[in-house]
Amino acid sequence: MTASTKKLTLYDTTLRDGTQMEGISLSVEDKLKITRMLDKLGVDFVEGGWPGSNPKDAEFFERARDLDLQNSTIVAFGATRRANISVDKDPQIEALLQAETEVITLVGKSSALHVRSILETTPEENLDMIADSIQYLRGKGRRVIFDAEHFFDGYSEDPDYAIKTVQAAHDAGAECVVLCDTNGGRLPSEIADTIGGVKDATGANLGIHAHNDADMAVANSIAAVNEGVVQVQGTINGYGERCGNANLVSIIGNLKIKMGIDCISDDQLSYLTEVSRYASELVNLPPDEHQPYVGMSAFSHKGGMHVAAVNKLEESYQHVPPELVGNTKRVVVSELSGRGNIAYKVRELGIDVDLGPDGTKEVLGRIKDLESKGFQYEGAEASFELLVRRAHSAYNPPFELVDFMVLVENSRRSPSMTNDAEPYLLAEAMVKVKVGEETIHTAAEGNGPVNALDLALRKALMQFYPRISVVQLSDYKVRIVDESSGSSSSIRVLIESTDGSRVWRTVGSSTNVIEASWLAMADSLEFWLIKNQD
Amino acid sequence: MTASTKKLTLYDTTLRDGTQMEGISLSVEDKLKITRMLDKLGVDFVEGGWPGSNPKDAEFFERARDLDLQNSTIVAFGATRRANISVDKDPQIEALLQAETEVITLVGKSSALHVRSILETTPEENLDMIADSIQYLRGKGRRVIFDAEHFFDGYSEDPDYAIKTVQAAHDAGAECVVLCDTNGGRLPSEIADTIGGVKDATGANLGIHAHNDADMAVANSIAAVNEGVVQVQGTINGYGERCGNANLVSIIGNLKIKMGIDCISDDQLSYLTEVSRYASELVNLPPDEHQPYVGMSAFSHKGGMHVAAVNKLEESYQHVPPELVGNTKRVVVSELSGRGNIAYKVRELGIDVDLGPDGTKEVLGRIKDLESKGFQYEGAEASFELLVRRAHSAYNPPFELVDFMVLVENSRRSPSMTNDAEPYLLAEAMVKVKVGEETIHTAAEGNGPVNALDLALRKALMQFYPRISVVQLSDYKVRIVDESSGSSSSIRVLIESTDGSRVWRTVGSSTNVIEASWLAMADSLEFWLIKNQD
Repeated sequence: MTASTKKLTLYDTTLRDGTQMEGISLSVEDKLKITRMLDKLGVDFVEGGWPGSNPKDAEFFERARDLDLQNSTIVAFGATRRANISVDKDPQIEALLQAETEVITLVGKSSALHVRSILETTPEENLDMIADSIQYLRGKGRRVIFDAEHFFDGYSEDPDYAIKTVQAAHDAGAECVVLCDTNGGRLPSEIADTIGGVKDATGANLGIHAHNDADMAVANSIAAVNEGVVQVQGTINGYGERCGNANLVSIIGNLKIKMGIDCISDDQLSYLTEVSRYASELVNLPPDEHQPYVGMSAFSHKGGMHVAAVNKLEESYQHVPPELVGNTKRVVVSELSGRGNIAYKVRELGIDVDLGPDGTKEVLGRIKDLESKGFQYEGAEASFELLVRRAHSAYNPPFELVDFMVLVENSRRSPSMTNDAEPYLLAEAMVKVKVGEETIHTAAEGNGPVNALDLALRKALMQFYPRISVVQLSDYKVRIVDESSGSSSSIRVLIESTDGSRVWRTVGSSTNVIEASWLAMADSLEFWLIKNQD
Repeated sequence: MTASTKKLTLYDTTLRDGTQMEGISLSVEDKLKITRMLDKLGVDFVEGGWPGSNPKDAEFFERARDLDLQNSTIVAFGATRRANISVDKDPQIEALLQAETEVITLVGKSSALHVRSILETTPEENLDMIADSIQYLRGKGRRVIFDAEHFFDGYSEDPDYAIKTVQAAHDAGAECVVLCDTNGGRLPSEIADTIGGVKDATGANLGIHAHNDADMAVANSIAAVNEGVVQVQGTINGYGERCGNANLVSIIGNLKIKMGIDCISDDQLSYLTEVSRYASELVNLPPDEHQPYVGMSAFSHKGGMHVAAVNKLEESYQHVPPELVGNTKRVVVSELSGRGNIAYKVRELGIDVDLGPDGTKEVLGRIKDLESKGFQYEGAEASFELLVRRAHSAYNPPFELVDFMVLVENSRRSPSMTNDAEPYLLAEAMVKVKVGEETIHTAAEGNGPVNALDLALRKALMQFYPRISVVQLSDYKVRIVDESSGSSSSIRVLIESTDGSRVWRTVGSSTNVIEASWLAMADSLEFWLIKNQD
């Protein structure tokens, strides 16, 4: 199935509109990786950037020519020619041609208000800009998609003019005219009504490009599909300026599973979770654990009643089978759990320990006891596994904590001993650890007490387990459990660690933030050691 | 305008369904704070919890009776009676009555499949369970709302039976029957069609309770309003199990601004951003910067073209005026937009300091510098006020920090010196503080390093300011700013303090959690002292 034989095509703009989001900046290498991933997912069009706007985008198009894509067509993005110049004199249009893509998307204005206030030209000139630019690129053998910016707002202000812009693009040879809810403020009912009107008035193939400012981007895109648009634009994970673009991940899930529209194949659908998480890694933003279809928690069950129900009837609290999108069901272990949760979790994590009914009861009792002290095992599955293993008599821990001391000093008695010295801050840790019969006693300095403790503990273990240096803390979270007690509350520390190939999470709790961190760090290293025994 | 005269009521379940989200666990104190905040926002119903399921919820209802609420009615939540017992013998129903709320929401099953597979009883008995339970509570003088669980899935499987459950609840005296998309998998068109069918078949007042598994919870809620439901249920920021509940914040924005439905007043709408951010603080989850209407980035502009356009035409890239919801426009990376903000904030907080243009510039520079080090003044207005006052040459601080030292020791060398002693944990702090020309040097022991520091600092200041003992830390939060750096990241500490009559918040940041706490604590005490000078 190719884009030209499909009734509905998917158009990704993560690389262009997605990067308008605060905090996202992609290298050319990142952009190429995302392109390959979108191709694997079966997205029809991948908008690579605006070659006229920056040199990085121009480099992308050059290197993208060497990608051996199976499903996706690379698209260059630009604007209609500037007002009152000839199209062949516009350097931005020239840069578009130099990107050498088969397809070009041009954005132009559909709102007469914007034409007057922002472009500061006449509505008639804007129509000429649309027509000239598209005809010129068509003459150079390119396929053209037209993005009608602010279409819905323009249609509210002056429907006749907005329709004229669509007509101009269609008559000039645009293969698809994409109606943009640029400010993202429209509701599905308005989208549906407007598209109906435009379809009747023009013969154009229409598309939809929605933003999420009213929390409606996915719903608006689906409403447009119901009205017969042939293209949906969006970004992976909804990345984009302000509140983001329409989330292509949710749209694909809904189109394919709920509406039976084969915009991608079943195999491709099973990559959806992987694609979403890989993209979040590349843009360096934490994945949204609650994201529909693909989040870590999208199919997780916490309440005891729900877990009991899921054990009786798999689909009782999930809207689709998670395997379809490459996700998995998770049962959260917490103080609300029953024995069933523990047994389920042990199986799910593939822990090769036979606890038996007594062992299970012991683990459950221990979890309830520890959770009442501020530990939390949901989201700390490595600590849960250690708890299960420790309940088994045959378990032999790779090391034992003996004791530690931490010193933090903020002092004006600086090394130079001048009186008005800037205060300096010192953090040192001493640790004592036992491996087998041997005790290691060592110390380290860090840029905070937890960092000092982390460095000292690794230093101690490195003597016996030199490979432990690959373990890195990738995330460190502190939460006050009983906030009403002020500075004497229980403190929970959650640590995420990685050795480059796998990620695991551990927990520690104490009224003392240092001890809580110490417990979580020790669990993290112990977990890695039992998983990587020689 | 009261709930009974409104056409559409808002029903918040943050305290019950919201806490089903992984990672959320609220203390009774937190729940009371959220209730007061929802009352201020004008939400009609606040579901407080499930008194039959845990003692914490029962305590909430007891304490909530003393809240002097202006707009909200507290609701207790429970399930219909168990199968094959008499309703007055069900302890869970009894617990509901003991919560002593005027309104009770009962959840019951509308899916025949679930009745058979999960409840393991007959469809007829389920109808009796619904009718008996509601009649019983009505007989005890309570108003009853019925939550029809899995309604939409049940309606797809067996529409006649699903409608019978609604009819049973309506006939038994439920004032509203809320149709639940429990698994969150339905699309707006299905929601609309189904509600139409149910309205025709029953005479019941209907409500909607949506989950976000298909990224449609807000759209489904709005679709239901368009079909004439009289109640919308949701949670603040969409907190909830799996992918969350319908986000009441987005729903309120859409109802009020886009659809002209006066579910709350204009004044109340202007608290929307504050309510959203305060809730995220209480549940200790980072606010979603891209959240529609209320996110930090919801009205921010990054692209140069967009910024230029916004300067020409204010509304060109924003769907509503941000002031309506208490949010502000932001231009990313812009010094000029900042100075106006500072002046605005100084006026807003009523700080009686005339900074002048140079002072404003100095404060702005200092904020930018400190924010780059992890401080954040949003939500820490006492620290902001101190920053402004310190920029004024006439400011005379009530004390000065000189230095501190903290020692944390975890050791098996217990005081009794036996070899196998349980490890003991020691936390001690030494502080040096200057008041006027005098230096106080003192020390204290605490149950953690921050607590020890807190006690030592108060002990030092008490000699000069004995009344300072009324100041209490009421909340203490730790957040890692740059999570990717692991244990050497910047750490931000936010402290909330109270003297029994007012509440203020301060911030500290450092790579060292102890120093960050020290800075926030010192700000808290300094703020109280300048506000309570004799």
